[in-house]
Amino acid sequence: MKIRKNYILAPGPTPVPPEVAAAGAWPMIHHRTPQFCAIIKEVAQGLKVLFQTQHPVYFTASSGTGVMEAAVANLMSPGETMIVLECGKFSERWSEIGKSFGCNIVPVKVEYGKVVSPAQVEEALQQNPKTKAVFMQLSETSTGCVLDVEAIGKVVAKTDALLAVDGISGVGAEPCYPDTWGIDCLLTGSQKGVMLPPGLGFISVSPKGWKAVEQSKSPRYYFDLRAYKKALDASDSPYTPAISLLYQLKEALKIIQNETMEGMWARHAWLAKATRAAVKALNLELFAERPGNILTSIKIPAGVDGEKLVKTMRDDLGVTIAGGQGSMKGKVMRIAHLGYMDRFDITTAISALEIALKRQGFPVKLGAGVSAAEEILWEDPK
Amino acid sequence: MKIRKNYILAPGPTPVPPEVAAAGAWPMIHHRTPQFCAIIKEVAQGLKVLFQTQHPVYFTASSGTGVMEAAVANLMSPGETMIVLECGKFSERWSEIGKSFGCNIVPVKVEYGKVVSPAQVEEALQQNPKTKAVFMQLSETSTGCVLDVEAIGKVVAKTDALLAVDGISGVGAEPCYPDTWGIDCLLTGSQKGVMLPPGLGFISVSPKGWKAVEQSKSPRYYFDLRAYKKALDASDSPYTPAISLLYQLKEALKIIQNETMEGMWARHAWLAKATRAAVKALNLELFAERPGNILTSIKIPAGVDGEKLVKTMRDDLGVTIAGGQGSMKGKVMRIAHLGYMDRFDITTAISALEIALKRQGFPVKLGAGVSAAEEILWEDPK
Repeated sequence: MKIRKNYILAPGPTPVPPEVAAAGAWPMIHHRTPQFCAIIKEVAQGLKVLFQTQHPVYFTASSGTGVMEAAVANLMSPGETMIVLECGKFSERWSEIGKSFGCNIVPVKVEYGKVVSPAQVEEALQQNPKTKAVFMQLSETSTGCVLDVEAIGKVVAKTDALLAVDGISGVGAEPCYPDTWGIDCLLTGSQKGVMLPPGLGFISVSPKGWKAVEQSKSPRYYFDLRAYKKALDASDSPYTPAISLLYQLKEALKIIQNETMEGMWARHAWLAKATRAAVKALNLELFAERPGNILTSIKIPAGVDGEKLVKTMRDDLGVTIAGGQGSMKGKVMRIAHLGYMDRFDITTAISALEIALKRQGFPVKLGAGVSAAEEILWEDPK
Repeated sequence: MKIRKNYILAPGPTPVPPEVAAAGAWPMIHHRTPQFCAIIKEVAQGLKVLFQTQHPVYFTASSGTGVMEAAVANLMSPGETMIVLECGKFSERWSEIGKSFGCNIVPVKVEYGKVVSPAQVEEALQQNPKTKAVFMQLSETSTGCVLDVEAIGKVVAKTDALLAVDGISGVGAEPCYPDTWGIDCLLTGSQKGVMLPPGLGFISVSPKGWKAVEQSKSPRYYFDLRAYKKALDASDSPYTPAISLLYQLKEALKIIQNETMEGMWARHAWLAKATRAAVKALNLELFAERPGNILTSIKIPAGVDGEKLVKTMRDDLGVTIAGGQGSMKGKVMRIAHLGYMDRFDITTAISALEIALKRQGFPVKLGAGVSAAEEILWEDPK
């Protein structure tokens, strides 16, 4: 059987650097020991850099959805009103979680591919003056849009409402300053910009947010942030932590701090720019109204079978990108440039896209996209 | 600096076999692909063998406490009565979770080191005829006791109540037959008998239990078992699964199926027997009224500083065992023989214990415990 190399350019899981992958195989040490406390201390400091916050960042053994539940269950009480900026599958999840916890949901909904504007948020807050919190995404992974968190933060700050931001695909790729942007709760998962396998959630809460945590009447145990706070204050975790993933986190945070957050953002912006130059050169169209550094979503052109395209790239060429989810299935493809990514990941993805398009008879000049990408990538990111 | 080898004999995390550790470093593949579906199919089959059940076993990205919450939140509704067999720190956690979810808790409490008898459960059920479910441990890790699940299952089966069993430290080490013992919900974690790092929870529910899941009014989202059922029916998972831990699970389940469950139980019983022979030879006393195959808890003898003993073993000799938790601190030590363990793990632990006792001036004939253990271990387990 022919050797075929595999590449992953999906918006999570993302590739894991080899030294991070290897760290997961370190022997188990017990989590209630001074030896493990030292690891927690080190990652707690690194997580503050990752989050660009002065407040503690708690880690959970869960996927990103787990910390989304933590945000809802800790900030909200049953019957309270939450505004949700619905612009894709993951923002809709905020509403699903809120419904499960008996909250009153006010969705501010836009078409997939569009973003909710600060003016729309302002209007929703005026119409719902008793809103407890606004829930939004930094990056809506399903459409490739990045929302204007800074501007929305200013709007929310004029009210008593809290602002909770799902940064699951955004943190590490897109600038985000929770402490100065008025974010009361920021969260992310491990399998995106943090370059780890999935299985860890991260969440931080502002002092204003903590008042809500203390007052919340929502049933919660595993995701009760009060237990995580009490534990982290003692460099501990409330339940058995995902030890191997924490070993890996320690290594990944070293890489992140070496590159610096500004360097991470610049690299992601550079990869995104190159990808979009290639898209244009191939006469394809962007799907997202406000694309970010995380991924580039592209409309499937007429005459092309979108699902088949993604399958050809993955199963025949070994290059995994993401298709569209839900009603976007077959209409969108999503190329991520997220996490442990460098220039030749982009040229590989564009090359595979060109080949897959040609195999469907789509008129494509082989190498045209790669050429355009190289025009950006021949220099280093600024 | 002198090389010092480290050994872990705590009741979780347990040592990870090298081939399992290495599998965690496999490159990420996307979880919504036929390639990953194939992995889920394989582990779903292996988990049924591990659980000795015909019913599906769901996996979560969480620690064991997460699936304990899943059991409570899915079987119970607020205001309903749950009987909890409280005989240690982990059984008390059932009550804490139940309280968080607004349940009416009826604790059947015994002193640490003792077990709740089937007769006590029968009495509690008679006094509380509206009990929705009985919650118990297969193995109470904090005291080293194993409960008589089979006998208690018979008692519960005479009523309409459900039986939920936390098998976090028990499954894989101690015989357990959920389908014939009347267990409606069985759960475990990855870092015990399954020989993985922590970060995965496993849970299965009987058809009778599923009726409660469908009817439960408890708020739940991340641990809503209906989402896991729908996903697993399609060889999928509802949220991003802990991919690297699932790679490792695939390898661990191969090892488990090669040894067979009967072989696993026999090996654990053999290691437990050898450990207890050593304890006796060292004139030490067992703490647990009904010790099982998982760990051996030993009373700290008069004149010995228990906390210091555990520290000497860990920090000076490189052998991590567990001390006592909560009010048992300094009064108990716990040597686990759980998971990826063979005869020389036991001789090493006993040897370290002898040395640590001698260093505190406790009268110990060096090698006496090891000799007694070898009298069991020179032969293979039956």
